[in-house]
Amino acid sequence: MSKTLIEPRTLSGFKDRLPKEAYAKASILSIVSEVFLSYGFMPIETPHIEYADILIKQGSDEIQKELYRFKDHGNRDVALRFDQTVPLARFISQHRHELEMPFKRYVIGNVFRGERAQKGRYREFTQCDFDFIGSDSLSCDAETLQVICNSLHALNLQEFTIWLNHRDVLNGIFEYFKIQDKIESGLRIIDKLDKIGLDSVKNELEKELCINKEAVDEICTIITMKQTAHYSEFFKEISYLKSYNQTLKKGLDDLESMLHILDGLETDISIFRINFSIARGLGYYTGIVYETTLNRLKNIGSVCSGGRYDNLTQSFSTERLSGVGASIGIDRLIAALLELDLLEQKGTMARVLIIAMQKEYFVFAHKIAETLRQSKIKVEVYPDAVKMKKSLGYANAKGHEFSIIIGEDEFRTKTLTVKSMSSGMQLESVSILRALQIIKES
Amino acid sequence: MSKTLIEPRTLSGFKDRLPKEAYAKASILSIVSEVFLSYGFMPIETPHIEYADILIKQGSDEIQKELYRFKDHGNRDVALRFDQTVPLARFISQHRHELEMPFKRYVIGNVFRGERAQKGRYREFTQCDFDFIGSDSLSCDAETLQVICNSLHALNLQEFTIWLNHRDVLNGIFEYFKIQDKIESGLRIIDKLDKIGLDSVKNELEKELCINKEAVDEICTIITMKQTAHYSEFFKEISYLKSYNQTLKKGLDDLESMLHILDGLETDISIFRINFSIARGLGYYTGIVYETTLNRLKNIGSVCSGGRYDNLTQSFSTERLSGVGASIGIDRLIAALLELDLLEQKGTMARVLIIAMQKEYFVFAHKIAETLRQSKIKVEVYPDAVKMKKSLGYANAKGHEFSIIIGEDEFRTKTLTVKSMSSGMQLESVSILRALQIIKES
Repeated sequence: MSKTLIEPRTLSGFKDRLPKEAYAKASILSIVSEVFLSYGFMPIETPHIEYADILIKQGSDEIQKELYRFKDHGNRDVALRFDQTVPLARFISQHRHELEMPFKRYVIGNVFRGERAQKGRYREFTQCDFDFIGSDSLSCDAETLQVICNSLHALNLQEFTIWLNHRDVLNGIFEYFKIQDKIESGLRIIDKLDKIGLDSVKNELEKELCINKEAVDEICTIITMKQTAHYSEFFKEISYLKSYNQTLKKGLDDLESMLHILDGLETDISIFRINFSIARGLGYYTGIVYETTLNRLKNIGSVCSGGRYDNLTQSFSTERLSGVGASIGIDRLIAALLELDLLEQKGTMARVLIIAMQKEYFVFAHKIAETLRQSKIKVEVYPDAVKMKKSLGYANAKGHEFSIIIGEDEFRTKTLTVKSMSSGMQLESVSILRALQIIKES
Repeated sequence: MSKTLIEPRTLSGFKDRLPKEAYAKASILSIVSEVFLSYGFMPIETPHIEYADILIKQGSDEIQKELYRFKDHGNRDVALRFDQTVPLARFISQHRHELEMPFKRYVIGNVFRGERAQKGRYREFTQCDFDFIGSDSLSCDAETLQVICNSLHALNLQEFTIWLNHRDVLNGIFEYFKIQDKIESGLRIIDKLDKIGLDSVKNELEKELCINKEAVDEICTIITMKQTAHYSEFFKEISYLKSYNQTLKKGLDDLESMLHILDGLETDISIFRINFSIARGLGYYTGIVYETTLNRLKNIGSVCSGGRYDNLTQSFSTERLSGVGASIGIDRLIAALLELDLLEQKGTMARVLIIAMQKEYFVFAHKIAETLRQSKIKVEVYPDAVKMKKSLGYANAKGHEFSIIIGEDEFRTKTLTVKSMSSGMQLESVSILRALQIIKES
């Protein structure tokens, strides 16, 4: 019977994770989850598939184009989620009576966007979000930033900068120039500052907003201001902006008050930097917004972004719920931690490989393995009785620290040969207890 | 501007998990992952979407009907994965040169099947699989069963039974009656024994396999045999079956040899029971197969099933790779642990809620919170300065053990009021250090 083989392949924009990387990712997620839990955030889960109308209402035009949308078996118009925020809004509205407010949740899951495939951009990627819903207190904004700091610290990342802005700063400037109605296009252009440079931003602002060069220059002066001194100095320097209008004043006051909370916390306040060009394109932000860059790897972009939104559930409910949320860019973090050599990549977490030279020794081999596991040592039993070269080759390739060899003598005397895979040193006729001790102490 | 609200709803067959349940699930997955790692299994990840031809080739007709299949933006014929085994086969074939054999992987992820919606059956559900590929040694089969036992033990489940069979037992019986060509329909019927009862199985076997009543009776005698004594006794009793043919002999010998390995491991061997009616409908099994039931909750069905397959990658490669795999039924386990009261359901993992009575006290509140977190105590700061009744009500609803109250006196003297939420007892003017001690020691 001849068979046609299918070429094993993944779709463009989709990828497999091999064990080393998958384990590294799982570790990162476990570490940040523990940080979320320590602040009272709890996990939730929502389906990967939703009614299309649920997702479309809040999505931008671009996202609609990128939506994986299809008919299900009941001919329903459905789609794969493209983010975790719209499902959160749906979730809160649907379960409102079961949830205590303020509601703090985190979520880790994959989302799908049919974007043009580019290097480092995937059509399926993991989002790790945490949100604090149902309070407009700056305490939440400050706490969100603490969670970001502590998550990065927990991952051994120390040198990073969190860039802060407030939507009302940009709103206030646009209001000042009487171009409030053009704020959306304005934000989209300002968002590209890092990518296209100041001159192009100026050109686009002038063209798209139909404003004169003077206004463009003033907007650009503000969005390129760099906070170099302590934040209190900086706010003194720019205090003149508060007189422009109430919107600008509110934005600047919020930023200063929140920094004041963070400053009281023995946080290294110099990691926070005001940057009025942070626009965070997404429509729903209304308050303080932020992005996080790694000082030694600025080119990878923001590893953690977020901000305050005023009316999360507006598509689903008339109740106005304010909230703050942030998203940790897991894929970028993995890339960064690898590049900074802060991520151990292991072929196996098992420290020991037990090698039985004959089939008959397997009971003994598994017994030793269970004994070691009872002492919290991770251990693997090589499943076949093969030539030593092969099983030791496996231990070398996978990265076991020790191999334990059970040959004829060992089996007869119920002792072990313990071999260090790094030094090649070998101890023979070792008791099980002694072997345990050697491995535990190394 | 009037807006139409969208009704927040999930698709039939799909569900949200609220925090208590989502946390419980995350804990279970974290516990079993740790068991997998301790045996040398490592995680991998594959995409939720694959080329349809990859999934269809190995899927049964039924699964093809249930497939979520659609065209992507590039008009490619794609589908959501319906299990983790076909993607594993594709993964191994595609990355063959990067993988060490034997290859041990676990995977936790959601799969999709457009089945008719039924109570307790979902169209999206989580599969937690572990597989041991590239060895046909019974050592792997035995280890897989150890992993199941230790996973259940790690979840505090003690009273369970693992039902064992070997495909060659049923193959051998069918061979004996010269109806090998009807094995697939036969297995499908036998698989229903628990559901439809012995009489219906007999009827169906007679009708569908076109065999006489005598043969049906003998098949049914074998599939209803109950192992009551020690396995060695049982194998003596049924040794006559080995003379039927080599296939039957191979099946019975494998089962006995594997039990011999497990018996040597101080495992409670009585949890393993031979049951020749275990058919495991899936086409790819070829060796020992098993299902696990909880003694106190038999009605929920198997919580962990698996077995050996001979040729995992046959659709993608000519290399023959034998393996063993098992799948932990996470949804059933959650239901079971809840019913057995073995799963703590908590509204928050934070033990302490800090309540600041005035906005001005928030810096102090967050400072206390960070101090407690540094001592590994999970703690939440109530974000608004509201009436005590409201914030204490939140602590009661969420299940914090303690609240720490910061009022005027506390703020002035930099002391705390610590309240036990269960007893209502309250200690005033407590130093931070003392508060930490009280919480740590309780």
